[in-house]
Amino acid sequence: MTNLLIKNLRILDGEPTDLLIENGRIAKIAPDQEAGTTPVEDAGGHIAIPALTEAHTHLDKSLLGFPWYHNDVGGGNLMAMIDNERQMKTRLGMDPHVQSMRHALKTAGYGATLIRSHVDIDTTGGLRALEGVMETAEKLADVVEIQTVAFPQSGLMISPGTAELLDEAMAMGADLMGGLDPCGVDHDPKGHLDTIFALAEKHGKGIDIHLHERGELGAFSMEQTLDRAEALGMKGMITISHAFCLGMPDQGRVEGLLERLAALDVAIMTTAPASSPAPLVKQLQAHGIRIGSGNDGIQDTWGPYGNGDMLERVKFVGLRNNLRSDKEMYQALDICAGGGAVAMGLERRALEVGAPGDLVLVEGVAVAHAIVTHAPRKLVVKAGKVTARDGATLIEAP
Amino acid sequence: MTNLLIKNLRILDGEPTDLLIENGRIAKIAPDQEAGTTPVEDAGGHIAIPALTEAHTHLDKSLLGFPWYHNDVGGGNLMAMIDNERQMKTRLGMDPHVQSMRHALKTAGYGATLIRSHVDIDTTGGLRALEGVMETAEKLADVVEIQTVAFPQSGLMISPGTAELLDEAMAMGADLMGGLDPCGVDHDPKGHLDTIFALAEKHGKGIDIHLHERGELGAFSMEQTLDRAEALGMKGMITISHAFCLGMPDQGRVEGLLERLAALDVAIMTTAPASSPAPLVKQLQAHGIRIGSGNDGIQDTWGPYGNGDMLERVKFVGLRNNLRSDKEMYQALDICAGGGAVAMGLERRALEVGAPGDLVLVEGVAVAHAIVTHAPRKLVVKAGKVTARDGATLIEAP
Repeated sequence: MTNLLIKNLRILDGEPTDLLIENGRIAKIAPDQEAGTTPVEDAGGHIAIPALTEAHTHLDKSLLGFPWYHNDVGGGNLMAMIDNERQMKTRLGMDPHVQSMRHALKTAGYGATLIRSHVDIDTTGGLRALEGVMETAEKLADVVEIQTVAFPQSGLMISPGTAELLDEAMAMGADLMGGLDPCGVDHDPKGHLDTIFALAEKHGKGIDIHLHERGELGAFSMEQTLDRAEALGMKGMITISHAFCLGMPDQGRVEGLLERLAALDVAIMTTAPASSPAPLVKQLQAHGIRIGSGNDGIQDTWGPYGNGDMLERVKFVGLRNNLRSDKEMYQALDICAGGGAVAMGLERRALEVGAPGDLVLVEGVAVAHAIVTHAPRKLVVKAGKVTARDGATLIEAP
Repeated sequence: MTNLLIKNLRILDGEPTDLLIENGRIAKIAPDQEAGTTPVEDAGGHIAIPALTEAHTHLDKSLLGFPWYHNDVGGGNLMAMIDNERQMKTRLGMDPHVQSMRHALKTAGYGATLIRSHVDIDTTGGLRALEGVMETAEKLADVVEIQTVAFPQSGLMISPGTAELLDEAMAMGADLMGGLDPCGVDHDPKGHLDTIFALAEKHGKGIDIHLHERGELGAFSMEQTLDRAEALGMKGMITISHAFCLGMPDQGRVEGLLERLAALDVAIMTTAPASSPAPLVKQLQAHGIRIGSGNDGIQDTWGPYGNGDMLERVKFVGLRNNLRSDKEMYQALDICAGGGAVAMGLERRALEVGAPGDLVLVEGVAVAHAIVTHAPRKLVVKAGKVTARDGATLIEAP
């Protein structure tokens, strides 16, 4: 745990001040502090924001560092994209540890100190992806805290042997049990949900399930999930990622789901996608539901988009939810920063005394300006330790 | 009209070649061309794309160059945002010529050689905005071709005196007659549409109408617009901007509208908004409908977003329409480049012999890579003349 005095920073759109981190936590925020023997950084009047939170990504599947991938599959067929990816991983000889190092460091360089990564578990790759990402998590512990989710990307009930691998993954130390479209991919919601809840219960861990199913189908799978969470007393232990069904037009139906989500303290992760129905953050906030966001996979066989920058994701959250005023931009930022940490079940990152010493100095004359321009970060600090400077992490990617 | 030989460029994802522009038009595309007395640019293997087209923006209202605008209005109330903007223009002492110079040059620096700008005409500002933008269009004629639309931003039927100003604006030389939400803003669709069609007919010009109205309301206003276009024989002369109603769920209804739009050769301009229903580009393309895109207003009293970069807009078109494969990324690019020019009623920009010598050298190892990273442009050429280099126009903004 480190001490650091950051001189002449502006907290959000406030007046210049100094911020002292002691033993990894914010100890004092006041102007004109004396450094004594504490290491000093001069913020030069830059704006400080809480460190960012990447709450939904896939560290094992980015193609960073490979020759550019020419995509001829397109976005029309989900199973074709899943099969293509599994085959390409082998054909390209991807090393999950190397890829996750590249991806995690890129994300950390943009100012995230927390990452939740789903990690593919399937009968082709076995546990290799999880081993690689866990090795990355260990190596980068001082730079970024990585949670892993054991994720049946290629299906569970349709792929015999996967349940046993998920069980091993949880025994190896995956932080959460994953899941995926119980109807849409597995075609067996009861089998899928019974299996992942049984494994979560066995290993005493929470669940983070991908739910792309739209409209009534998604609502059905969501209800089945909530029924099990309720029966097993898993309040506060469930995350539903994507949750496209919460963007359906039937608002009476959506409100009913939101009430149950709030009662069970379920967290929602949204990438704020432009091309899908999606949870509306203001509506969720009105119910007190924890919300995080993430970039999802970046530059992989699924598509060319994404760079790991959670400040650009703040912009996407704003654009998707029609957020425009300064106050609304702070709300979008919170989803990708402190609020995202809370959604991950961790302590809120905030620029206040007592909070973890995780912060980012950004370029821009105002917070909204920094968000919409998302220029390379000036400085990234985790628990009082400088981890990145001028857009690059101090540790180099392999 | 200028001559220029560009050596060692890659056209889209093709092999390196040379491209000769003579008298402002592409004369030859072949490797190892001799320059003779023709000026030469070395592209260094960079990818060339056709010049970009900004087909929907508002050059008169960006706050570029002003202190950062702190927005406390938000996105909830359309009329409040309209009134706030009109008042702020006076309070801040905005000069439409200076603002449009800043905005147009920023857009041109990102590689657009064509801009269609709506220009506010109202009883507060009168014709000042149009005068300012027309002055910019004249000054920047060698850098970017600017079309102007006389736009009743503050309403027409609800604001007596506006129709007379629009008449004057058209007499001054505005290229198109504008319009705005005949039901939603003016509350008098017959009055609004009769007025703008009469003015368009009087001055022999086309129409580009903002239509944010959603669902059945927008479909009604669209039908009323199409009825008049048909009756007045204005095939190919109408543009509908935004057209959110084409994103409504009732696909039978949408298909019926698309058939009429195609029959009357109406162009659609979409910003590919993340927070609104929107026309789906593949569906429009299937009907052969001309499509352009634009950044809309940037960094103004409406919101903090936008920078004038039409290559970033390609990314938004792709994200909004779930475009992922290389082929789909080319389609997204075309909407913001050659296809956008056609939607503006102009000659297609294309990298082929005979086409206008308008092109951009981009950074990236592949076209999709250039789109998703949208780094500053290496070189921008209009009619064989270099207009911008390394992200900056050769003419400086005031």
